[in-house]
Amino acid sequence: MINGDTILLAHMGYPTTTFKAPLIYNPYFDAIGVNAVVIPMGVKAENYTEFFRAVFKLTNIRGALVTMPHKIASTILVDELSTTAQIAGACNAVLLRSDGTLVADMFDGEGFVRGLLRKGRTIDGASAMVAGSGGVGSAIAASLAAAGVSALSLFDVHAAAAVALAERLRMHYPKLKVTTGSIDPSGFDIVVNATPIGMKDGDPLPMDVSRIAPTTFVGEVVMKRQFTPFLEQARARGCETQVGVDMLFEQIPAYLEFFGFPTTTADELRRHSQIAY
Amino acid sequence: MINGDTILLAHMGYPTTTFKAPLIYNPYFDAIGVNAVVIPMGVKAENYTEFFRAVFKLTNIRGALVTMPHKIASTILVDELSTTAQIAGACNAVLLRSDGTLVADMFDGEGFVRGLLRKGRTIDGASAMVAGSGGVGSAIAASLAAAGVSALSLFDVHAAAAVALAERLRMHYPKLKVTTGSIDPSGFDIVVNATPIGMKDGDPLPMDVSRIAPTTFVGEVVMKRQFTPFLEQARARGCETQVGVDMLFEQIPAYLEFFGFPTTTADELRRHSQIAY
Repeated sequence: MINGDTILLAHMGYPTTTFKAPLIYNPYFDAIGVNAVVIPMGVKAENYTEFFRAVFKLTNIRGALVTMPHKIASTILVDELSTTAQIAGACNAVLLRSDGTLVADMFDGEGFVRGLLRKGRTIDGASAMVAGSGGVGSAIAASLAAAGVSALSLFDVHAAAAVALAERLRMHYPKLKVTTGSIDPSGFDIVVNATPIGMKDGDPLPMDVSRIAPTTFVGEVVMKRQFTPFLEQARARGCETQVGVDMLFEQIPAYLEFFGFPTTTADELRRHSQIAY
Repeated sequence: MINGDTILLAHMGYPTTTFKAPLIYNPYFDAIGVNAVVIPMGVKAENYTEFFRAVFKLTNIRGALVTMPHKIASTILVDELSTTAQIAGACNAVLLRSDGTLVADMFDGEGFVRGLLRKGRTIDGASAMVAGSGGVGSAIAASLAAAGVSALSLFDVHAAAAVALAERLRMHYPKLKVTTGSIDPSGFDIVVNATPIGMKDGDPLPMDVSRIAPTTFVGEVVMKRQFTPFLEQARARGCETQVGVDMLFEQIPAYLEFFGFPTTTADELRRHSQIAY
């Protein structure tokens, strides 16, 4: 029940049609009796700066979930950026603190990391290969670094993107071994497809799955289908895998903590969720 | 269920704590299966212009409900003002039309008029006395004029406010007989208290009730209690009355039409409402 005391979380992006967060947060808030609501707000890029500044003047706003195409633009509109958001060069959450300042963080990678840990895998000291150095790939690399991987291999078809990400990682994590330029997944404890390859039917595989060891943990960011051909082939090889939607649910407890709401498990969120799958 | 296709109605005002519209519209939208939601948005006066301009850039907004302290300020921010809003010098509803223009209207008085008509009274050709020429008094006077009263008596402790309202009414309704300066309610078919007198315990009566005829219809805008001392005394004299909350519910069908949603009766809205009284 929305009333005059309801706390708002603005969910800013465009287009809004595919927004999933309201279907996860709102039934959870209902279930635990928290008077807060995630509101989809469709904002086009050309209106974003103006809307961003105005919306945080609301007296009943706690923060915002930021999605496409605003994750990068938001980083220059806040007072403080987390290390992960700095490395990712993007953010997906903005908190309005009681002193009026805005702090942004990036939880896409945190969702990936939490899912992996909850499946009983170890990240501290592990080696990881991340294909794709765009927004989500950068976020995953940053969160893997924060969680203690000892070595990261980055690949992007735009080589400069991987090189720039490697630079940012080395700056914040000087002991981390970062390499770029290879799409070979062999020999890593963790392999992630953070490219859009797999969203469309008939896409090629993002890498040579036959070179992934069965002991490797294989993750995916594509959410269009639960098991992409990439994940299917990794599973056929005996690999433990993580689907794209896991990352979505696993990052929400981190968001809830960030916004100062009572938190819970990804499973509990999934149980309340109004998402169809 | 709020999702990415939900249409927003911004409910802008400050403070938000006493907002009632979300408790009326949202359960109604739920009940009839309309994917729209009224969202309370607390906006302070100093941020209003900026927020107003930004919020109508949202791709999923249909319009706004405007309340204190923004009803006057909004009139200069829209492209088109209804006659009633022009006379009232205030608006409480803004529609974003598909061509991107904004049109504002004022339904406080319309709620009063609809309630009166629904109680079987006649307005066309009637005489009315409206005490208070502030926002709501002006709105009621404007709506009574639109509904066909032949004579209006206006009173405000700030005489200039009543005189200015009378001028605006004469401009739009040249045949209407408008007088100002008297608080005597005798001889009118309709008498309305549109002053804040009655909100606080121990307030005096807004006028001499002993001079109101039992055949007179007596209305009230104060919503703090259902029957103010003014209404109690009018009822004791045998007058038919209308409480402040009636005006609230009666105006919502008009809002729904304005915003292009399926409309209904005030009774149906009341039945779904989450308001406690």
